[in-house]
Amino acid sequence: MSRFMSEKFASLTPYTPGEQPKNMQYVKLNTNESPFPPSQTAQTLASAAAKELQLYPDPECRTLTQAVADTLGVDFSQVLLTNGSDEILNFAFMAYCDENTPAVFPNITYGFYSVFAELNRVPFVEVPLKPDFTVDVDTLCKTHGTVFLANPNAPTGIELAQSEICRILESDPNRIVVVDEAYVDFGAQSAVALLERYPNLLVTQTFSKSRSMAGARLGFGVGSADLICDLNTIKYSTNPYNINRMTMAAGLGTLQDAEYTAQNCRTVMETRAETMAQLAALGFEMTESKANFIFARHPKLDGERTYLALKEKGILVRHFTKPEISAYNRITVGTREQMDLLLAALAQILEETV
Amino acid sequence: MSRFMSEKFASLTPYTPGEQPKNMQYVKLNTNESPFPPSQTAQTLASAAAKELQLYPDPECRTLTQAVADTLGVDFSQVLLTNGSDEILNFAFMAYCDENTPAVFPNITYGFYSVFAELNRVPFVEVPLKPDFTVDVDTLCKTHGTVFLANPNAPTGIELAQSEICRILESDPNRIVVVDEAYVDFGAQSAVALLERYPNLLVTQTFSKSRSMAGARLGFGVGSADLICDLNTIKYSTNPYNINRMTMAAGLGTLQDAEYTAQNCRTVMETRAETMAQLAALGFEMTESKANFIFARHPKLDGERTYLALKEKGILVRHFTKPEISAYNRITVGTREQMDLLLAALAQILEETV
Repeated sequence: MSRFMSEKFASLTPYTPGEQPKNMQYVKLNTNESPFPPSQTAQTLASAAAKELQLYPDPECRTLTQAVADTLGVDFSQVLLTNGSDEILNFAFMAYCDENTPAVFPNITYGFYSVFAELNRVPFVEVPLKPDFTVDVDTLCKTHGTVFLANPNAPTGIELAQSEICRILESDPNRIVVVDEAYVDFGAQSAVALLERYPNLLVTQTFSKSRSMAGARLGFGVGSADLICDLNTIKYSTNPYNINRMTMAAGLGTLQDAEYTAQNCRTVMETRAETMAQLAALGFEMTESKANFIFARHPKLDGERTYLALKEKGILVRHFTKPEISAYNRITVGTREQMDLLLAALAQILEETV
Repeated sequence: MSRFMSEKFASLTPYTPGEQPKNMQYVKLNTNESPFPPSQTAQTLASAAAKELQLYPDPECRTLTQAVADTLGVDFSQVLLTNGSDEILNFAFMAYCDENTPAVFPNITYGFYSVFAELNRVPFVEVPLKPDFTVDVDTLCKTHGTVFLANPNAPTGIELAQSEICRILESDPNRIVVVDEAYVDFGAQSAVALLERYPNLLVTQTFSKSRSMAGARLGFGVGSADLICDLNTIKYSTNPYNINRMTMAAGLGTLQDAEYTAQNCRTVMETRAETMAQLAALGFEMTESKANFIFARHPKLDGERTYLALKEKGILVRHFTKPEISAYNRITVGTREQMDLLLAALAQILEETV
């Protein structure tokens, strides 16, 4: 920190993205990317958009916003597109949290929530997960503040039932509940269907995972027109042209190729089931993941040492040091071939260790 | 504003981007876009990047950051790339302003500065321009706080001499001076050369204007490694993957085609000079613009009515309602053909009015 920097950020600790070492070619199972390329239409439209970069993008993103709205069955006024879903999440922290309205989220969840709270200098309350890693809804319902709920949760992959989300929404109709559905397309149920009933619900999604567009940065929020209006006030005060032309075009192409995305999701779910069965056969214990990753530990293996041993063998997974989950590793569901490499490496590590 | 939104933003008035009406095809001279397409290499590299969108971009933007650093003759550690230069400007407001450190800028300048100040809830001081629209450096030097200086200034296009920038930098070595060089490539002198002497200087630039990449969203800050470290803390707490793969690739291609950019800048400057001479012949009065726009008024024409009359004829320029400049219109320097259409329309308006 330079001597010029405002003291308000003296203790700000940034988010650490998954590592991207360049010293060798890794089997990359650490950032939950899709193993499939973007849709052909996405590529074609993005290339065409690259010819017109001299012109600003439409700040209202009208065409793509309408396409997202149509896909979700909501109105144009209910959708706001952002530069990745991190941006819409930050906008929600800005709009709906302050010194009197803390952010509330599970103690084990997407690691960025606490960073957003600190960045925006709002208090936050972490509600411990239950021993089985499920969300403690009873305790959560008793809190005061804006709730941020990754569903399925990260890095556990566990889905919270829609009835439980309703309970949280009903616990205080005067607070916003943000449901972050980055991983919803791999077998979980979306809360978008609840929007008609709950004006205090904001759902966020991303094109990064199921839609193979992590490299394009595209996310969005869906809520009542009122909430989207709030978030647009933030957007137009932060970065009105937040989405570039090529990403908008790629997003449109991806939505047009909806069957391609659906097929990729089915493949990931099949590979997840097969890999989990094989990991179980090796003695691994796993949560019931509805995401494109597996959260696994082995009674005879140390979590961090397994992560390091895999890295040495050229396979990157994600390890978190929080004591409650340090025995685990989060493993992206990649291609069948990548999973075979992972399984072979883990079998070898087990052999060497046990 | 919904009933859920934090009261801290009750009075937040967002920035208004230049209008983009869709009801007809306009000659668009209102947002200072380049009249030239992005470089061929930029288009080619962006199209190639569109094939790998399933993978996150490099959050450190290593290749492009190094290329920008090489272009400017500074070190890798002195550059931070952002999603347009609005993002780096907002980061600077976040990092270097707070309740005790107001933002200081001229009363007539880029309209976003006051929005950033309100968004970040920091006080701001507007130093009135002198009657000739130049920056009042004497008064500015006496203020306390972080200075934001568009150079050339917007919407006047007037350049502040480097010696004057040095005076501001020296007026208080304990405050940051941000020099926003969005329009520097059209004949003005960059403050990047001053970085070695002034650790309190941050320069921002954009790929939107001279580099024909407004639609790609790419900007950057250049400063001491210490300052860039501060701003990286903000970036990694806001949006670590702030720049997508295609934009990074296009940026790299643009830097590789440096002569194309240089030639485009020369053309814009020539067209600016020719157009200004013809406008003068029609009786227009103009500032001495070093930007890719002309700031013009006519003693016999009302500013707003001229803007509206041009719009009716299918030509968009930008009009600002602040009383000090409401007699003027800001006109982007487009192609020679676009300027001919503009001149013909203005001649007609003059004929109809006078």
